[in-house]
Amino acid sequence: MVSEEILVEGHIIDSLILSKILDEILQFGGDFRLKEVHVGQRRDDRSQALIEVQAPDANQLGRILNQISKHGATFRTPEDVHLIPAEQAGVFPEGFYSTTNQRTLVRYQGQWLEVRKQEMDCGIRYNPAEGTFECVPVIHIRAGDLIVVGHRGVKVIPLERSRELGTFEFMSSNVSTEKPKNVIIHDVAQKMRSVKEAGGKILLVGGPAIVHTGSVRHVVRLIEEGFVRILFAGNALATHDIELALFGTSLGVHMDRAIPADTGHEHHLRAINTIRRYGSIRAAVEAGVVTSGIMHACIRHNVDFVLAGSIRDDGPLPEVITDVLVAQDRMREFVPEVGFALMVATTLHSVATGNLLPAWVPVVCVDISPSTVTKLSDRGTFQTVGVVTDVEPFFRELLSELGVS
Amino acid sequence: MVSEEILVEGHIIDSLILSKILDEILQFGGDFRLKEVHVGQRRDDRSQALIEVQAPDANQLGRILNQISKHGATFRTPEDVHLIPAEQAGVFPEGFYSTTNQRTLVRYQGQWLEVRKQEMDCGIRYNPAEGTFECVPVIHIRAGDLIVVGHRGVKVIPLERSRELGTFEFMSSNVSTEKPKNVIIHDVAQKMRSVKEAGGKILLVGGPAIVHTGSVRHVVRLIEEGFVRILFAGNALATHDIELALFGTSLGVHMDRAIPADTGHEHHLRAINTIRRYGSIRAAVEAGVVTSGIMHACIRHNVDFVLAGSIRDDGPLPEVITDVLVAQDRMREFVPEVGFALMVATTLHSVATGNLLPAWVPVVCVDISPSTVTKLSDRGTFQTVGVVTDVEPFFRELLSELGVS
Amino acid sequence: MVSEEILVEGHIIDSLILSKILDEILQFGGDFRLKEVHVGQRRDDRSQALIEVQAPDANQLGRILNQISKHGATFRTPEDVHLIPAEQAGVFPEGFYSTTNQRTLVRYQGQWLEVRKQEMDCGIRYNPAEGTFECVPVIHIRAGDLIVVGHRGVKVIPLERSRELGTFEFMSSNVSTEKPKNVIIHDVAQKMRSVKEAGGKILLVGGPAIVHTGSVRHVVRLIEEGFVRILFAGNALATHDIELALFGTSLGVHMDRAIPADTGHEHHLRAINTIRRYGSIRAAVEAGVVTSGIMHACIRHNVDFVLAGSIRDDGPLPEVITDVLVAQDRMREFVPEVGFALMVATTLHSVATGNLLPAWVPVVCVDISPSTVTKLSDRGTFQTVGVVTDVEPFFRELLSELGVS
Amino acid sequence: MVSEEILVEGHIIDSLILSKILDEILQFGGDFRLKEVHVGQRRDDRSQALIEVQAPDANQLGRILNQISKHGATFRTPEDVHLIPAEQAGVFPEGFYSTTNQRTLVRYQGQWLEVRKQEMDCGIRYNPAEGTFECVPVIHIRAGDLIVVGHRGVKVIPLERSRELGTFEFMSSNVSTEKPKNVIIHDVAQKMRSVKEAGGKILLVGGPAIVHTGSVRHVVRLIEEGFVRILFAGNALATHDIELALFGTSLGVHMDRAIPADTGHEHHLRAINTIRRYGSIRAAVEAGVVTSGIMHACIRHNVDFVLAGSIRDDGPLPEVITDVLVAQDRMREFVPEVGFALMVATTLHSVATGNLLPAWVPVVCVDISPSTVTKLSDRGTFQTVGVVTDVEPFFRELLSELGVS
Repeated sequence: MVSEEILVEGHIIDSLILSKILDEILQFGGDFRLKEVHVGQRRDDRSQALIEVQAPDANQLGRILNQISKHGATFRTPEDVHLIPAEQAGVFPEGFYSTTNQRTLVRYQGQWLEVRKQEMDCGIRYNPAEGTFECVPVIHIRAGDLIVVGHRGVKVIPLERSRELGTFEFMSSNVSTEKPKNVIIHDVAQKMRSVKEAGGKILLVGGPAIVHTGSVRHVVRLIEEGFVRILFAGNALATHDIELALFGTSLGVHMDRAIPADTGHEHHLRAINTIRRYGSIRAAVEAGVVTSGIMHACIRHNVDFVLAGSIRDDGPLPEVITDVLVAQDRMREFVPEVGFALMVATTLHSVATGNLLPAWVPVVCVDISPSTVTKLSDRGTFQTVGVVTDVEPFFRELLSELGVS
Repeated sequence: MVSEEILVEGHIIDSLILSKILDEILQFGGDFRLKEVHVGQRRDDRSQALIEVQAPDANQLGRILNQISKHGATFRTPEDVHLIPAEQAGVFPEGFYSTTNQRTLVRYQGQWLEVRKQEMDCGIRYNPAEGTFECVPVIHIRAGDLIVVGHRGVKVIPLERSRELGTFEFMSSNVSTEKPKNVIIHDVAQKMRSVKEAGGKILLVGGPAIVHTGSVRHVVRLIEEGFVRILFAGNALATHDIELALFGTSLGVHMDRAIPADTGHEHHLRAINTIRRYGSIRAAVEAGVVTSGIMHACIRHNVDFVLAGSIRDDGPLPEVITDVLVAQDRMREFVPEVGFALMVATTLHSVATGNLLPAWVPVVCVDISPSTVTKLSDRGTFQTVGVVTDVEPFFRELLSELGVS
Repeated sequence: MVSEEILVEGHIIDSLILSKILDEILQFGGDFRLKEVHVGQRRDDRSQALIEVQAPDANQLGRILNQISKHGATFRTPEDVHLIPAEQAGVFPEGFYSTTNQRTLVRYQGQWLEVRKQEMDCGIRYNPAEGTFECVPVIHIRAGDLIVVGHRGVKVIPLERSRELGTFEFMSSNVSTEKPKNVIIHDVAQKMRSVKEAGGKILLVGGPAIVHTGSVRHVVRLIEEGFVRILFAGNALATHDIELALFGTSLGVHMDRAIPADTGHEHHLRAINTIRRYGSIRAAVEAGVVTSGIMHACIRHNVDFVLAGSIRDDGPLPEVITDVLVAQDRMREFVPEVGFALMVATTLHSVATGNLLPAWVPVVCVDISPSTVTKLSDRGTFQTVGVVTDVEPFFRELLSELGVS
Repeated sequence: MVSEEILVEGHIIDSLILSKILDEILQFGGDFRLKEVHVGQRRDDRSQALIEVQAPDANQLGRILNQISKHGATFRTPEDVHLIPAEQAGVFPEGFYSTTNQRTLVRYQGQWLEVRKQEMDCGIRYNPAEGTFECVPVIHIRAGDLIVVGHRGVKVIPLERSRELGTFEFMSSNVSTEKPKNVIIHDVAQKMRSVKEAGGKILLVGGPAIVHTGSVRHVVRLIEEGFVRILFAGNALATHDIELALFGTSLGVHMDRAIPADTGHEHHLRAINTIRRYGSIRAAVEAGVVTSGIMHACIRHNVDFVLAGSIRDDGPLPEVITDVLVAQDRMREFVPEVGFALMVATTLHSVATGNLLPAWVPVVCVDISPSTVTKLSDRGTFQTVGVVTDVEPFFRELLSELGVS
């Protein structure tokens, strides 16, 4: 048996952190001795525990320590990070530290430094020129880059559950369809207002059902009032939005009568063709061809948008970025500005955006199907608040709560 | 090979009726010769077809004829119905004619008589005193009752698809979550208004999610304005409605804050116990104990209600009818008055009510899950218009369209 | 501020019990001081905490203490239970203790006695003749019955999470469709075998989809091999099972070809009528009319069954208990014998059975829709292991794992 | 009022084609006179109808004629197609004919020529060198290309419903979860065998749930036995397949025990990194690093695969095509060889593939969620047979039916 002493501190009892750590030690084949436990007597006191972790061999001990380090456990005697140069471009060195989306510190020359551009499923690269550390996806690794290896000298600061009922606290574990939504939407509106007032930008990640359900005018109002400042979407949302602007239909269905138009199934392709003729959505808006809709509002109100391509796209529209790695990088550029993310009716773009966001950006995911919401949390974006409801009434109520309907 | 000549007439081509009949003849092992076809030249002209149906033997021919009689096919040379007395109480005679929910005529002494109390999955009983025919469920058969056997002398009048885009026409085949709901809800409101103005009663069939989603106040408004005149529900809806009136919670969750109350999971049982102490919901309302909610509104505004029991009930409340056959009969009493049925968030009560309604009563079924809507249509209530949406916003928009919010 | 000292002991840290208690004290408006905490050093050591709970007034303190008593918290200085006689039949006294499905002790004359017939949403009645306590549903209360009031003298023993990976441990929190089912089914089989070998009875709670999906022969094999000893179902399962035995169809669809039969929609009604003519399913089996299927196997192999009625039933079959309270009591009679419950493709009967089972009976719930599984856990049957999969292949694999296919 | 005479012939009555045409004429604001109708007397006789279509103006008449041409209606007096040169690269000329996935003929110099590379949502380009017509997506249009405009001279040959119960006939309209799946899987197996024997290739389109559900070994068997010759998938399927080969986990969950591995959430990233170090999956297989799994089997058995990128990809693996238009073109190369498409547990890749396949390639779509299946049909791949079932048991039963388990 080998062992190592680790420390955890904070609200580790009522935040369940101590429980999770002990649980994982056992679950992954180790054992523990609680050497010292100081429990805060009152709700605002912090607690502290010194734990001896035991495992059959050094390898398993390493894996257990690595695992529990995600919950903020650190070595009793801290050491500096290990840095190893990448041998090949686009490849991490063996044993690289794989990041989470939680706030992370790295100990370098005896100092704890915060890692920049926090993002899950990356490596951590040292920038010698600036003396900083940052998350880097594997494709951007250059030969010779200094990469953090192992978990020594890395400390994760897990988000503590707020001890009071904070915004969203009540919703966090549950995607039930049977909750009173108006209360939840009221809180979403409050959060959006406070983020906007604090100068943060609100990101909308949206799927084409926004158009099909008749929600275009609601999103346009959000844009006009500054509640949506960045849009991540795909070819489909933009195409059907422009189809609606040009033909009054979405997927060939008249939005004002809910009946199919004659030859309506061709409208989306004709809309794409029209925009391609003008060279870009912006050009078509400026030429007065597209005079309404979400894309029109984005261009008129300087909302940044990233339209990311997918293999099921028809066309696509000229602004669509067809290389997915280029699209990811373009999305990454906007992540630091995002103070709040509203994800509506798209699994693909929601999971993609969730992959890029740090854990401290609040995410609200709205879908009529519970599975989309579940999938987002399962994939690591655990800060997601799921609202299982219908898209159009959600937006209508949201506008009403924001006082901009 | 044996054969029989049958006639069909009406808008049999654009209503797909002729196609369905030819299709079923082939599907069930028969063959056909189209002996005469007169196709109406213009949209308002009726068409007529004389079809020789062929089958390998008389039994199979009988089954095919029985099958296609559901689409209105009749023998070229009509005969009177066959009546056979029931030997046992509660049992149909062998070979009894099994009813649909479509308008049905019976030929008796050379006259075509409309069957009363049309209901699916019943037998047809002759009432010699009044000279009338009516649908009867098997449990109400008395020994000696005269019951229609076979399909001779029975004619079904299928609902023709309206040739213009009538109310609901556009929605009928589709439960998609991606349709613009406001158009649909607008039409539902219009239909409810016209039924109310014509003196018909609107039936609400509802599940407890009406309470959990915060829709009680909307339903109360519908009752106050006369838009709901009959309520079919179970113990759960009434219990949670009264729990809300007494404790401000539903299933233990505060409706105004969407957070669980301490010991809230006990509230529904305490609510039931309180009502049981007063002897009935009505008594508790009259004693001033229950002063708000759906059940309170029903009693104050003379809305008839049937609370039908189920095996998952706690309590139950005193008004709950615990014998399901008694509950069915109580529901049957109200069916003739129903001009429109709105079914919300309950599979059990919706299917049960669908079983009792004739096909010409319009049914709108609202649920956030597509499967409930599909199940209702699959079980024979094919006139159902499904609206896959969230319950609370549905009611909110409905009230707004009705101008009573 | 008022306060009270409470004690909790056991594996309260890694079972999350301490965390939950502190959390609920805060959540429901109280505060705490951890007066003494002894944390077990090793995994098998038990921990102990003495907590001073504070609240603004005595009422709120009472509600908080009541709430946390569900997690096993007890007064530092225990007292006897308070007993109050019921004034009316069918009504609990004001302030009655509302039960959970967890093992519960009552302190009477200084002794801790285990409550019998443990069932959620009941009261606890003292039986002076035998000196025992038992759970009683509200409808069975007689005037004068001595009922436990308040939470003094009541101790709940929550199921501790096993500290090793026990059977089912890994599945407990998750109903994902993306798990390897064969591992789960392997464990279900092992559990069924061990319950059977220990002399426990396995209960099958099933819906008609068992018949529609072609699983009848699998269930028959389970019955033949003694793996199903009790069946809870409704009219629909029995009717379609007998329809299949008589006509080869289920809901009118040929099971061996998956195509609709001519006039097949009438088969279920004709099946019911046939059984009604014989007076009972048993009589029809004994007369050689029904010679295969689940109900046939139940009768041939002395499997007890309860067919509980619901308002959507056609017919019903003679054995169906149409009063839901009588059906519940009949189900209660079998609960003490149940060592394992397998619930398949029925929300109504699963929730109803879950209401009656104590928390220590393992429950496996199989459905192709995640919502049924979720609903069962939400309604308090938290020991449920959900398996989101297709019914027929589930049974096929289960038989193979049991070695009886 | 303007009018035009059109002809339809074939099994237009029992195939519902005549009904649909008359219906759409009315629905889109036109009217009709049935000038001559010859109805085939027997089931094998073809029918013929001459219809005068009327509309308020020439534009609407044009749209109606365009719409009904999808059902095979042609002008009584046929004319040659109109060809117009594209002015810009990547843009169709105004009024271009938008294709369906049905077999299409073009009349050129008095001759009817079949259009090649049939694909929905394309234009039709004339190749003067070869005298042929072919479908072309908008991105591949070059300035000067001759493109079909309008619907004159274009004839669509709709797939007639087979008049006998052909393979899959019974399943076509229904994605019910309540059908006996073994019958359906039996038919799928038969179809796969007959396609293989006729020299056609079977395409598997798969999502990562194939790996998560423990189906890798089944797919490997299909590949070994030649039942899968082409694979369309994404980075996720290949990554988790290789994660399983390297670590025994999928998304960090041990496949043989269904429990999470310590640090298992990092495995997929380490798997990607390992393959990137070797430069390609093929190189890693040849180096003996990857020795099992689907990708290993593809390389060992010369199965062609296209791994198409998406914005939610981590890594990605070297073979993943990150530009979605390049990926679409690569998929198009394989379409002509596909005799049967099996789509499992992926909405994105299934819809993308459905967009490329002509209507006469049979498609079976397997998913535990009905919505994926519905979406595929809604998007125009109407030949899809949906099987709502669990993935792993589906494959297990399929292998058993194919006799290769």
